[in-house]
Amino acid sequence: MRVALLGPEGTYTHQAAKKYFGDFEPDFCSTIREVFKSDTETKFVPVENSLGGGVSDTVDLLRDNGNKVTAEVVLSIEHALISDSGLEEIETVKSHPQALAQSEEIISEHGWDKVETDSTAKAVEDLNENEAALASEIAAEINNKPIVRTSVQDKENNTTRFFVLNGEPEPEEKTSMMLEPGEDRPGLLHSMLSCFAGHQVNLSHIQSRPTKNKLGEYYFYVEAEAADDRMDKSIKCLETYADVKILGKFSRVE
Amino acid sequence: MRVALLGPEGTYTHQAAKKYFGDFEPDFCSTIREVFKSDTETKFVPVENSLGGGVSDTVDLLRDNGNKVTAEVVLSIEHALISDSGLEEIETVKSHPQALAQSEEIISEHGWDKVETDSTAKAVEDLNENEAALASEIAAEINNKPIVRTSVQDKENNTTRFFVLNGEPEPEEKTSMMLEPGEDRPGLLHSMLSCFAGHQVNLSHIQSRPTKNKLGEYYFYVEAEAADDRMDKSIKCLETYADVKILGKFSRVE
Repeated sequence: MRVALLGPEGTYTHQAAKKYFGDFEPDFCSTIREVFKSDTETKFVPVENSLGGGVSDTVDLLRDNGNKVTAEVVLSIEHALISDSGLEEIETVKSHPQALAQSEEIISEHGWDKVETDSTAKAVEDLNENEAALASEIAAEINNKPIVRTSVQDKENNTTRFFVLNGEPEPEEKTSMMLEPGEDRPGLLHSMLSCFAGHQVNLSHIQSRPTKNKLGEYYFYVEAEAADDRMDKSIKCLETYADVKILGKFSRVE
Repeated sequence: MRVALLGPEGTYTHQAAKKYFGDFEPDFCSTIREVFKSDTETKFVPVENSLGGGVSDTVDLLRDNGNKVTAEVVLSIEHALISDSGLEEIETVKSHPQALAQSEEIISEHGWDKVETDSTAKAVEDLNENEAALASEIAAEINNKPIVRTSVQDKENNTTRFFVLNGEPEPEEKTSMMLEPGEDRPGLLHSMLSCFAGHQVNLSHIQSRPTKNKLGEYYFYVEAEAADDRMDKSIKCLETYADVKILGKFSRVE
């Protein structure tokens, strides 16, 4: 199966896609926008808390394009320390700025110098003597480099969420949608959320974004934890307040 | 006045800061995280729809740090076409991927090749013959390069919002805050928003973000268009549902 995703090879996006698709033929793109434009029908994009990938980018691109969300994949981000040198010989550590920031304890404990790279994967490609990279285990494997220590980030529970677009149908547990009210007044969002509250539907994500049509005009991106008749009723209610565009009903893969 | 902001020199962040501060001494940092860490007290950070800067980064860092939002600056992003060559001699156009994507009409009209750079400012620094950059007018000025055409982006109303942190007090018109409910149940957000609706307070931004303490636990980042006694009453009401952390009361500078 061919899948378009954010490159380069060996990033956390690649690792998450491998977890979901198993063996697949990757079509690596250099920006999230290019993933959306790719001719490859099935796409894999970060939606939340990604290393260097933009939530807002993905949400805006979902609004503009006719893609269907078919699954959500959650990956726990664990940085491996990758180096040809042993732990005590390392002098410099390279990675994406966010990965460096997420691993400050081990870096300051050893007094390593930091070098920023465009991606975690790139850090592994450019390793010299006495240097280490913080990156995914898949990046070590691809570049045939030894892992000195696994899971060196400061905190647990650093996860990234991804969406599969236009993939195989999955059991439906969640619904993601755009709400475009076309007006702005105090209490409007509160009224729209009454549609979910009244049908006991929990939300797992909400975000307002400028429409770019008119300054101060917003749309809402919402994910709800239901895809059954409670959701159908909620949508009927929401349609009395806003244009409702369902992006997909899907399940979560941890 | 010394101000920490995202570098390099000549980006839209730099242009927006110049608009607000006039003459100032810039402390350029290479990531938003470093801006927050800088010893320079007054900081200038993008919060929405920035070229390559992350909304989520800023929101998460505002949650973790004791900074006070003192002003909001809105900049309309207009890309200038910058080149030593004339319009008809240009063969290649360089810029940040998002600036290239926002100027597709002029690029495809002329059939220019595209080259991606890390920032719009960097594109201007690396110009060769028959090449043009898409960047801010300030970048052209700094690099002493001619502007071939101003405002070449496809759409109007492409704006970026910035926050001034720990700056001079301004008239108070808006309030930004974090709401941390510490629990998750259907209808909770709806109940919290009743505090704003009941006091006729309009929201201009809302976003849920994972707390990173526990999977599935969220906090809300909210901006409201009031800073008067209606806001005081709304906060009193909100405190019955969540921990409320006021990040600042401020005015908008267009």
